Amino acid sequence: MKHDFISDELIINALREDIGQGDVTTRSTVPQDTVVQGKFIAKQQGVICGLPLVERVFQILDPEVLIHFLVKDGDKVSPGMVVAEISGNAASILSGERVALNLLQFLSGIATYTAQVVESVKETKLKILDTRKTLPCMRALSKYAVRVGGGSNHRLDLAGGVLIKDNHIKAAGSITHAVIAARIHAPFTLKIEVETETLQQVQEALNVGADIIMLDNMDIETMREAVRIINGRAFTEASGNMDRKNLLEVAATGVDAVSIGSLTNNTLSLDVSLKLL
Amino acid sequence: MKHDFISDELIINALREDIGQGDVTTRSTVPQDTVVQGKFIAKQQGVICGLPLVERVFQILDPEVLIHFLVKDGDKVSPGMVVAEISGNAASILSGERVALNLLQFLSGIATYTAQVVESVKETKLKILDTRKTLPCMRALSKYAVRVGGGSNHRLDLAGGVLIKDNHIKAAGSITHAVIAARIHAPFTLKIEVETETLQQVQEALNVGADIIMLDNMDIETMREAVRIINGRAFTEASGNMDRKNLLEVAATGVDAVSIGSLTNNTLSLDVSLKLL
Amino acid sequence: MKHDFISDELIINALREDIGQGDVTTRSTVPQDTVVQGKFIAKQQGVICGLPLVERVFQILDPEVLIHFLVKDGDKVSPGMVVAEISGNAASILSGERVALNLLQFLSGIATYTAQVVESVKETKLKILDTRKTLPCMRALSKYAVRVGGGSNHRLDLAGGVLIKDNHIKAAGSITHAVIAARIHAPFTLKIEVETETLQQVQEALNVGADIIMLDNMDIETMREAVRIINGRAFTEASGNMDRKNLLEVAATGVDAVSIGSLTNNTLSLDVSLKLL
Amino acid sequence: MKHDFISDELIINALREDIGQGDVTTRSTVPQDTVVQGKFIAKQQGVICGLPLVERVFQILDPEVLIHFLVKDGDKVSPGMVVAEISGNAASILSGERVALNLLQFLSGIATYTAQVVESVKETKLKILDTRKTLPCMRALSKYAVRVGGGSNHRLDLAGGVLIKDNHIKAAGSITHAVIAARIHAPFTLKIEVETETLQQVQEALNVGADIIMLDNMDIETMREAVRIINGRAFTEASGNMDRKNLLEVAATGVDAVSIGSLTNNTLSLDVSLKLL
Amino acid sequence: MKHDFISDELIINALREDIGQGDVTTRSTVPQDTVVQGKFIAKQQGVICGLPLVERVFQILDPEVLIHFLVKDGDKVSPGMVVAEISGNAASILSGERVALNLLQFLSGIATYTAQVVESVKETKLKILDTRKTLPCMRALSKYAVRVGGGSNHRLDLAGGVLIKDNHIKAAGSITHAVIAARIHAPFTLKIEVETETLQQVQEALNVGADIIMLDNMDIETMREAVRIINGRAFTEASGNMDRKNLLEVAATGVDAVSIGSLTNNTLSLDVSLKLL
Amino acid sequence: MKHDFISDELIINALREDIGQGDVTTRSTVPQDTVVQGKFIAKQQGVICGLPLVERVFQILDPEVLIHFLVKDGDKVSPGMVVAEISGNAASILSGERVALNLLQFLSGIATYTAQVVESVKETKLKILDTRKTLPCMRALSKYAVRVGGGSNHRLDLAGGVLIKDNHIKAAGSITHAVIAARIHAPFTLKIEVETETLQQVQEALNVGADIIMLDNMDIETMREAVRIINGRAFTEASGNMDRKNLLEVAATGVDAVSIGSLTNNTLSLDVSLKLL
Repeated sequence: MKHDFISDELIINALREDIGQGDVTTRSTVPQDTVVQGKFIAKQQGVICGLPLVERVFQILDPEVLIHFLVKDGDKVSPGMVVAEISGNAASILSGERVALNLLQFLSGIATYTAQVVESVKETKLKILDTRKTLPCMRALSKYAVRVGGGSNHRLDLAGGVLIKDNHIKAAGSITHAVIAARIHAPFTLKIEVETETLQQVQEALNVGADIIMLDNMDIETMREAVRIINGRAFTEASGNMDRKNLLEVAATGVDAVSIGSLTNNTLSLDVSLKLL
Repeated sequence: MKHDFISDELIINALREDIGQGDVTTRSTVPQDTVVQGKFIAKQQGVICGLPLVERVFQILDPEVLIHFLVKDGDKVSPGMVVAEISGNAASILSGERVALNLLQFLSGIATYTAQVVESVKETKLKILDTRKTLPCMRALSKYAVRVGGGSNHRLDLAGGVLIKDNHIKAAGSITHAVIAARIHAPFTLKIEVETETLQQVQEALNVGADIIMLDNMDIETMREAVRIINGRAFTEASGNMDRKNLLEVAATGVDAVSIGSLTNNTLSLDVSLKLL
Repeated sequence: MKHDFISDELIINALREDIGQGDVTTRSTVPQDTVVQGKFIAKQQGVICGLPLVERVFQILDPEVLIHFLVKDGDKVSPGMVVAEISGNAASILSGERVALNLLQFLSGIATYTAQVVESVKETKLKILDTRKTLPCMRALSKYAVRVGGGSNHRLDLAGGVLIKDNHIKAAGSITHAVIAARIHAPFTLKIEVETETLQQVQEALNVGADIIMLDNMDIETMREAVRIINGRAFTEASGNMDRKNLLEVAATGVDAVSIGSLTNNTLSLDVSLKLL
Repeated sequence: MKHDFISDELIINALREDIGQGDVTTRSTVPQDTVVQGKFIAKQQGVICGLPLVERVFQILDPEVLIHFLVKDGDKVSPGMVVAEISGNAASILSGERVALNLLQFLSGIATYTAQVVESVKETKLKILDTRKTLPCMRALSKYAVRVGGGSNHRLDLAGGVLIKDNHIKAAGSITHAVIAARIHAPFTLKIEVETETLQQVQEALNVGADIIMLDNMDIETMREAVRIINGRAFTEASGNMDRKNLLEVAATGVDAVSIGSLTNNTLSLDVSLKLL
Repeated sequence: MKHDFISDELIINALREDIGQGDVTTRSTVPQDTVVQGKFIAKQQGVICGLPLVERVFQILDPEVLIHFLVKDGDKVSPGMVVAEISGNAASILSGERVALNLLQFLSGIATYTAQVVESVKETKLKILDTRKTLPCMRALSKYAVRVGGGSNHRLDLAGGVLIKDNHIKAAGSITHAVIAARIHAPFTLKIEVETETLQQVQEALNVGADIIMLDNMDIETMREAVRIINGRAFTEASGNMDRKNLLEVAATGVDAVSIGSLTNNTLSLDVSLKLL
Repeated sequence: MKHDFISDELIINALREDIGQGDVTTRSTVPQDTVVQGKFIAKQQGVICGLPLVERVFQILDPEVLIHFLVKDGDKVSPGMVVAEISGNAASILSGERVALNLLQFLSGIATYTAQVVESVKETKLKILDTRKTLPCMRALSKYAVRVGGGSNHRLDLAGGVLIKDNHIKAAGSITHAVIAARIHAPFTLKIEVETETLQQVQEALNVGADIIMLDNMDIETMREAVRIINGRAFTEASGNMDRKNLLEVAATGVDAVSIGSLTNNTLSLDVSLKLL
């Protein structure tokens, strides 16, 4: 959220998309110099996320709009709580309102859901990971929201980690061949993770020195056995239709982390509204 | 979905975002000329949407990848059903898989949920409308998915309709002043809609000749009375935290349409996976 | 003209195009710290339009250039009148001069011509409309200039209004089929306009409830009869090689509006020059 | 007109601008697979220009649209003449029609006017030059249209020629200093042109070896004297509110070339229409 | 080099930059339909790299230009060897020549130098790594050229590896604190590397479990001692003004890899020319 | 270097490329509000070039970073000399460091090498010219660095000069035909240069009035004879594998200028480092 020049492009595209050839209603009905004040108010309980984007939306539209935040990203909000106060040109605020809220609600939705998942396993040492199941142009922001919610990031993109799946294994000939090839050809700085579905695959990945072993779609019993075999010699990641219901069971197997697609691939808005005075 | 050059930009941005500096796993482990075949398989029941985007993802990555669809956008799918068959260079398919699935799952999620809502009022004449509560860069696609699911589009952007809300009314002085100003200044081709919260506002909007009257956050009783007063002289749109539970009641008031934000901002991905052979 | 971030892209493209790899003359001959003052002076009578763009051109090139406007968009100017005063770095002003003048002259040309047309029918209630006959990348600005000149905007783009023409009618089967289809499938917020060439078509469009009926290339007599038949049940728009000569006759038929392509596709620049002191 | 990748960006921007969130009329009323045929027909006499752009508009929208040209850029057309035949998907053709015509009419307008000017001095050796008075993003195309109309290009952008004007002279101290500075600092490959308003300036420019001497706003008598003094030792360019009326007089002074802003800054569309069958 | 859509943008920018407002020489002197044939010929000994880019340059300019390669990326070339044959429209080939050669010569220069360095240590197990010292927009291509030359990639960008340097250590308080923070907050898939300058730092990095320990600017003796201490419990990377002269000495210390900035920021173009027949 | 909006795009692309999905090390280990100070220090002797770009890198990342330059572009630096002082947010400085240094080192490398070449012929009147052998997106900056180093620019792009080479001559039929065609069709403001390899070609170019005659790959003797024949009636440019060794000999022939590709097509970094305190 630091480097505005990155998210600025997204915000400008969003404004362009929403404003199109102009906010004809505001242009027609609101005198040019009208000044208004307003408040962003949470309507649901959750973890707020995306406030710096809200600020940029209005700065881009009109640098004279003032916005003052009463909470910061990662804070818990409850219904009725004032999140921010805004004042400035009415046309600027009305034209940016929808884009600002769309971003804020979406990211807060992710942060809120992640926080709930993390809370559910807080007595364990299980790490909650996201995936690459994010919407177009929302990868970095979605993964930021996961961190704000207390989760951890899996690889950010295909360049940010070696993850050898079924198809790579087939193409390479074996887990052993694939890991060795990755060790030679992939960037020096990346861990090598292998997706396994059987204990035999776990053993092979372990033998060839994989840094991370993914236990994919294993039942709890097999997972526990895999963790026992690995015995700390590699990180372990559980994967495959994980949801909140079975996470404590998963944690009890001793697995290090679990990756959960639904953290980011459902649009779970947290309701926040802008009330002008 | 016709004009590829529009969604191409989104797809390219999504690929860039996901591939980053390169798919290091595939590059390291899969021989360059490996050819694979695979199937896109539905894992849940729903309405499929976004297939032309799936095709473009692979065409952009590699024009030699072949994809053959067994269903088309708007078709119902059920678990296990093959949605498409794909064949071609393994690296191309593996590198595009995630982006293709992310788009397909997201749009199918919107279409599926919309279809459920539409189905729930199919015995009535109530029109199901979307809103501008969409994610950045996903406006046109989200609204396309709503249409595929059987819903109707409200305005596409701020230039695509005059919607006079509370704040416009305050700034203009009255509903009457605002509507007259819009009639003079807004494009000739747009209907003028007024958001009302009381029967008195409904009457004023009707008197000044509003084309559409939004009944915002009204209880069922007031809504019914509003519809009775309007009596077909303007379109009526119910709005405000509408969900599937109360839609039949809303329909029974005689209102023409209802707009529902959650069609596009609170949806679950429809699970579809790519299985390579 | 409010949302600079939109026209900024146009201005940057224009500067790039004009400056290319650099203003070699100024770079070679003008010492880097030379400061100059100058005046933008109207050389013809007309309506000025585009001043905010002039300001942005220089802000983008050099935030330290100062510009002070003595008139504002929509004001009438006459030969010799000072439109603005400018001061700052000579290189910045010399490098931006041409782009600023090109924009100002073009938009002022449209506003001036529109104002003349509007003036010519000021005793009538005829509304003067523009069309989509604009130059690439100049749509929003051209339509802004039309408004500044006192004209009204027809649809801004293909998404901003349903206009059923001859070819749509043929494809749909009839005016009746086309209007019904549009009512079902087009966004809820758009009026439906039908292009007609005969009184029979007018009657069909009226029967199916078109919101606007275009009277295309009709002679004055037919137009008058069409208006009589419609009798206020739909808006009427005259179209087809309209020019200033026959507008009073057109107005006398009682038609509501007339659309004129030459407002935006056949315009003479209004001469304005920059005189450095 | 050769390197499509350059004008493709302009065309895509123009399509984006005109289509916006979609051609709602065509989408609603025209069955997806409707095929149509049509003809581009000239409605006025002139020089056609821009046909390759017309082709690209439809190729970009839909590679399956076929277009066959009966004339080529630079050909003379007269009212009723068929310029091109087109066939393909109705939606693609209807959605691209306006952009294609806007470009074709604008460029043909420039080519036609240029051809008239060139024709008016064809008995002389006077060269007709354009200027940098072009619309944003239309520089290259406008200058192409000038060439198609038989005119010649002055510098394409600020990097494409040294043109020392009044303000450069003041800043440098004198014509002599400015020319010497340009000779040292400007690219090796550019001619050095000096703008002069008096015979004394002409003499100074000549003495310091200017390659081109612009005779700016001189009366015919002074211009003739300037040409006599220069006597072929530099190219001469007449400038300043030149129009067709006085060009023969200007030519008679013996000046080599004349630059005319109105070639490109008055948009006189040549009427061409698309008639579907 | 697989995903053209990535490097296409670079190529288009390069063509735009080189062609500017048009290749005026070719346009003026070469008849439009002239067809030519030519050969790309190596003028120096080295490793060729960038051929797919050469192909794309001409495909983008003109899909009808044919190019046939006689070698492929990574092959050794010697003076006089024909690298590729080309035929097609003269204007297209002449306009693309410079951009194609600039890319080919630059990348071949990197590949050639890398190959020389790799060759110099081929009897050892020392891995040759690149750095982030690359030119703007050339990161991916430069690192590709390093791989073609037989080198290995260090992290591709700041997201592709955790590299804790002096300043991070100071800000975090100690190596121990920094590594622990990175383990919690950085993506799960990245190795953690620590830059050390003393044996005490090496020991601390080792104790806290760093995956890679960089031995920065150490003399040979210290480096050997560091490797002895680490004893295979972490990867070791030598860094700091490494050049070919001392690599065998470095290798003899037992260090795993060495990173060399000059692979990509201090390279000589490999001379290749295009000879038309 | 004046018009930031041009190089801003390059800088943003460079930052995007280097930062990717985020500087994970700094984000994980450096507290958000850490403030640091540092110095840019020259490590080699040379001519500094690119300081305004360094400033923009940090302004774009974070407008609150302060940077104070102790030298300016074109100044000579020697090992240990402080070039600039910087202070501000640690994350901003650490994230921009590499991009800033990459640009500064590359451009300083060009300026330094150019200055050495210029120095070597300072007793003569030989002009040192660059070529179009520059890296993608670096044309304007590379040519700026050549000027900073005391060299002169040949044409900036294909639109900035007519340079008739062997292939143009063949296509046009003869030097005479090609020059005449260029005089008619190329922009009025460009000199016409002809590449010659024999004295006969020199004579033909001279006869038809070429402005510049390039003496390509001629031996010293032939070059001297060519200069004698031309005798000041055209500029002369020596070309073809020129390097510092033979420049005095070339100068002695009386040729006006020499163009040298290696000024810009080798990445010769000047070592500069950022030392945080």
